[in-house]
Amino acid sequence: MQADKKLFTPGPLTTTYSVKQAMLKDLGSRDDQFIQIIKNVQTKLIEIAVFCSFEGLPNDEYTVVLMQGSGTFGVESVFQTCTKLDESNVLVLENGAYGQRIEKICKLLSINHKVLRFPEDRAIDCDAVKSFLEKDNNYTHVAVIHGETTSGALNNVEKIGQLVKTHIPNSILIVDSMSAFGAVPVDIQKGFIDFLISSSNKCIQSVPGFSFVICSIKKLLSFKNNSRSLSLDLVDQYENMLKTNQFRFTPPTHSILAFKQALDELEQEGGPQKRYERYSNNHEIVRKGLLSIGFKELVPHEEQSKIINTFHYPNDENFNFEEFYKRLSDKGMVIYPGKMTKASCFRIGSIGALFAEDMHQLVQLIVQILRDMNVKIPIQY
Amino acid sequence: MQADKKLFTPGPLTTTYSVKQAMLKDLGSRDDQFIQIIKNVQTKLIEIAVFCSFEGLPNDEYTVVLMQGSGTFGVESVFQTCTKLDESNVLVLENGAYGQRIEKICKLLSINHKVLRFPEDRAIDCDAVKSFLEKDNNYTHVAVIHGETTSGALNNVEKIGQLVKTHIPNSILIVDSMSAFGAVPVDIQKGFIDFLISSSNKCIQSVPGFSFVICSIKKLLSFKNNSRSLSLDLVDQYENMLKTNQFRFTPPTHSILAFKQALDELEQEGGPQKRYERYSNNHEIVRKGLLSIGFKELVPHEEQSKIINTFHYPNDENFNFEEFYKRLSDKGMVIYPGKMTKASCFRIGSIGALFAEDMHQLVQLIVQILRDMNVKIPIQY
Ligand SMILES: Cc1ncc(COP(=O)(O)O)c(C=O)c1O
Ligand SMILES: Cc1ncc(COP(=O)(O)O)c(C=O)c1O
Repeated sequence: MQADKKLFTPGPLTTTYSVKQAMLKDLGSRDDQFIQIIKNVQTKLIEIAVFCSFEGLPNDEYTVVLMQGSGTFGVESVFQTCTKLDESNVLVLENGAYGQRIEKICKLLSINHKVLRFPEDRAIDCDAVKSFLEKDNNYTHVAVIHGETTSGALNNVEKIGQLVKTHIPNSILIVDSMSAFGAVPVDIQKGFIDFLISSSNKCIQSVPGFSFVICSIKKLLSFKNNSRSLSLDLVDQYENMLKTNQFRFTPPTHSILAFKQALDELEQEGGPQKRYERYSNNHEIVRKGLLSIGFKELVPHEEQSKIINTFHYPNDENFNFEEFYKRLSDKGMVIYPGKMTKASCFRIGSIGALFAEDMHQLVQLIVQILRDMNVKIPIQY
Repeated sequence: MQADKKLFTPGPLTTTYSVKQAMLKDLGSRDDQFIQIIKNVQTKLIEIAVFCSFEGLPNDEYTVVLMQGSGTFGVESVFQTCTKLDESNVLVLENGAYGQRIEKICKLLSINHKVLRFPEDRAIDCDAVKSFLEKDNNYTHVAVIHGETTSGALNNVEKIGQLVKTHIPNSILIVDSMSAFGAVPVDIQKGFIDFLISSSNKCIQSVPGFSFVICSIKKLLSFKNNSRSLSLDLVDQYENMLKTNQFRFTPPTHSILAFKQALDELEQEGGPQKRYERYSNNHEIVRKGLLSIGFKELVPHEEQSKIINTFHYPNDENFNFEEFYKRLSDKGMVIYPGKMTKASCFRIGSIGALFAEDMHQLVQLIVQILRDMNVKIPIQY
């Protein structure tokens, strides 16, 4: 069998073989073993959200609801379930495509909302949020992205949470931590986060299949019988799991088996903190490598999430992204296109089962391919 | 490693080892190989819907949209996208829990609807549908279940489709063929079916992870910019796939790899017809075995789907379903509880990688366990 390509992408990502092997099993949805696995997975996710590590289930204030589908399904489930038509008014803090996706969800779902826009190449400016909230705070919900995967910028959601708490004490804070949760430290209590969304195939390093929402039980239950969707009804999913230990609909059994294994491997690695150290190290290897040959990065260093990084295209007539991408891919290394509205960029992810050696190899290959393509080194802008 | 239990359930079901092995690979969502696999899978699904076999892509009238999440997500996606608030009026033909689920979706989504109810232990009476439609046909949509997995009854959706076509020529026919598609013959053209929904983990015999909607392109496109959900917007999902060859959001890559393998194995088995013969044979082995020791089945023989069958609990004080289930499960055979509102029943599925021998073994084990439980044989009612 041909070896898998290395995925320097924000997911689906490179998982360990043992994570994939965990899927070599068919389990019934009512199976005791499966029910235990779900409970185990739920406990660990809440531990990470509260302690940023595995320290034993903290309290019964939070729960986690698993939701079939990709991450966007999880994000939408929060809005379908936990906003009220006419009554709710959502403030979206936006600095990239995933903030814009929340805006789109609000539009399609006919939820009142206002978007506070920030530059797409920077982390959100907390001082600007503060000034804004001092003057305009008539919101029931605030939504923000944690790691904006579009650029690789990291928003300081704990600080934003504290500002929101100060200026709109009773509002609901929704954090899309899709590409950050499980590695980038975040304390759901310190940040006053009510709903935090992530998915199986990001920093937990499992396969796609479901998203999950870690949330305050009290806030969640205040939206009982409120959802405008059956599939995406978070409260119904929560209550049914509580009552029957089962999903309401066919669960993604194989993905959940893989996820259990991935959580075990996260614990073996030393928990989110150690994992984040590895990702940060991966990230710096590529950064230094590419900066040393003249590449420019988009986001200021101190505002980077270390999850993914964005580099400007060289200003060289011999550089063609699709060609560059294809050559890298043919050599077994998959990078990611850019998603900027203004700048032409590509992205390189540092998450997944990738290690220092992989990152060094990637840098070497990039140099070689640029040479083969007759792109001038050092890179010109 | 412990052998998997045999799942005599309607899914997640017993898949072949080779289907699960196909998941031992991480593919990026932009990967050429992955894009080819998606195309291949789409072509084969349309072939099955039109020919009930693999005969080369028939025409460009139909498409298939893959949708993350379980089957219910696929069903809901049709209603979120392809009904219009205020304007639409849906007639739901209901004879069990999955018809009721469509009713619930209509309610939650605020779609005008009427439910025509039929007994839950029978297939839908087409003459009654005809008489009804002769008098009352002010509907824009008609929805019906193909194999009602609640009971195991098979609704004649082609005949229903012809009645609908006659009495409401411009209406939209939605068929939930979740547990039937891929085995039970259905011709989407002969039945005038506009939207047919199924999922990965039923008769195609793959793992859970996504549903799919086979539909008339023209009808689908008439609902552009109409969805009240982002995740479940079928048109958006279709158009994006057409334009970019990609899912809008992270695709369930591993599930799709498994599904491709499962479709290849369906073709190797001789296509849907041969598969349906095996399922029917599986079904009859269990039926005859259980009837021979006195069990009573719920649905008349000629109305059974052969996908799953429902048996009444014995009227014996020593029979306890949870105990019966657990003993079977401990011996590696997993059956399914009932879902009848009126009768106490259990169900036995005949789909998945199960063969005559497995069914004989199940019958033997059931006899033995009933004896161990001191349930009188022949069964008393
Ligand atoms: C921050 C963020 N939000 C939302 C999403 C959407 O997740 P999905 O593609 O799984 O729907 C992503 C995906 O990368 C993301 O990075
Ligand atoms: C006829 C029918 N419709 C809908 C569903 C729901 O599918 P899921 O459980 O995958 O959401 C099922 C599941 O068995 C079914 O049999």
